[in-house]
Amino acid sequence: MTLKMIGFDGDDTLWRSEDYFAQAQTTFESIVAPYVDLRGDALHQRLYAVEKRNIAVFGYGVKGMALSMIETAIEITDARIAATDIHRIVQLAQSMLQHPVELLPGIREAVERVASRWPVVLITKGDLFHQEAKVRDSGLADLFHRIEIVSEKDVGTYSRLLEEFGIDASQFAMVGNALRSDIAPVVRLGGYGVHIPYHLTWVHEREADVAEPSRMRTLAHANGLYDVLDEIERGMTGTGTRPEPDPAHRGN
Amino acid sequence: MTLKMIGFDGDDTLWRSEDYFAQAQTTFESIVAPYVDLRGDALHQRLYAVEKRNIAVFGYGVKGMALSMIETAIEITDARIAATDIHRIVQLAQSMLQHPVELLPGIREAVERVASRWPVVLITKGDLFHQEAKVRDSGLADLFHRIEIVSEKDVGTYSRLLEEFGIDASQFAMVGNALRSDIAPVVRLGGYGVHIPYHLTWVHEREADVAEPSRMRTLAHANGLYDVLDEIERGMTGTGTRPEPDPAHRGN
Repeated sequence: MTLKMIGFDGDDTLWRSEDYFAQAQTTFESIVAPYVDLRGDALHQRLYAVEKRNIAVFGYGVKGMALSMIETAIEITDARIAATDIHRIVQLAQSMLQHPVELLPGIREAVERVASRWPVVLITKGDLFHQEAKVRDSGLADLFHRIEIVSEKDVGTYSRLLEEFGIDASQFAMVGNALRSDIAPVVRLGGYGVHIPYHLTWVHEREADVAEPSRMRTLAHANGLYDVLDEIERGMTGTGTRPEPDPAHRGN
Repeated sequence: MTLKMIGFDGDDTLWRSEDYFAQAQTTFESIVAPYVDLRGDALHQRLYAVEKRNIAVFGYGVKGMALSMIETAIEITDARIAATDIHRIVQLAQSMLQHPVELLPGIREAVERVASRWPVVLITKGDLFHQEAKVRDSGLADLFHRIEIVSEKDVGTYSRLLEEFGIDASQFAMVGNALRSDIAPVVRLGGYGVHIPYHLTWVHEREADVAEPSRMRTLAHANGLYDVLDEIERGMTGTGTRPEPDPAHRGN
């Protein structure tokens, strides 16, 4: 048994993303500050409540964030906010969508080294147009066998993708910063997860139960990635972590 | 030679879309009417200019449309527009994104009949989250072998998809309402296009040069689709429309 494919997450695994959302919250705070007494956590909670209410309609990404910010600004100011200040929120979205891609330290070398041994795919979530722009600007696109931009990273999505790739989950490892989107669903399917936490993670992504923690590794930095995948693979060929055979495939 | 795969566009080929954008323009007009003398075409031109300027940043779709409408409304009213009226534009986006999917007349039967003979794929452009919702709500998802949501439908996109499908362009036909996105790039690659014009088509999609019009058919209604594909296939096996062999593949 060997690993047949390694999946990488994009935002906050390959390149910075949440930093820009955090900066955008600070800008949003400064835009609405002249109108309301809400600051810091209390303001963020109001915004997060609107985002959460809208996520089933807008999905993830900058444009949905901007529309939720506009709605929040209007609600919390009782519609006293000036159109020029609402325009600053539109401009904030435009500037986030045009921000140069900033790769995380050591990530290019880490992906190149992994790609020299295993086929690698990029599985990233969010706004199609913005994700494609980031993939293009990252300079990493050529390393990936396939690039999949999806609206949700759950068991159903990974299951469909692995079927399209023709790969069994037990021979697949996913690398990412989000337990909920990158690690838990892949481990649930019988694959492996390599969790590289990021200093900032959206509250929505932080909590998840990983069904079988023995199939997960945690790394502080991408430069240990090749070695940890190598160790996972060596464990697979031994008897230690080999999964129980599926009863449906047993003889008689 | 036979057709190996049939591609379908989504918006305004399987289900209504542009009608909702046209209705949204009318609503937008009624929202800004109290502030400006601009009406009809003059107003639409201002909005289209902002949409065109923003498309490289926002991409296609309802959320980008709403942000462009908000920006246009602020610009043309010299920021006199009230926050409550801007909120109506946000609500317009929310309502468009939640609108039930309305299949075009006879489309289910037409797709089912085509799918009974050839593998069919859906290749649709726009906002990932909204397109996925429409595919799910359409009730047609199970008919499609693959569902591809892309940000742009050009020669590069079709070329990549056909490679992923393992299909030669000369054995592929694409069905859609937009010459620019559905027909011209596929014909340029050596495939076939079946154009089913829709009574409304966004100005951006209307114009395109189809390199070889003999590889395109035009239909008034989807219920002629099976027969026209059958006719294309019979043309392929005869000598009539068989493409010139590629000189690189000639024996000598």
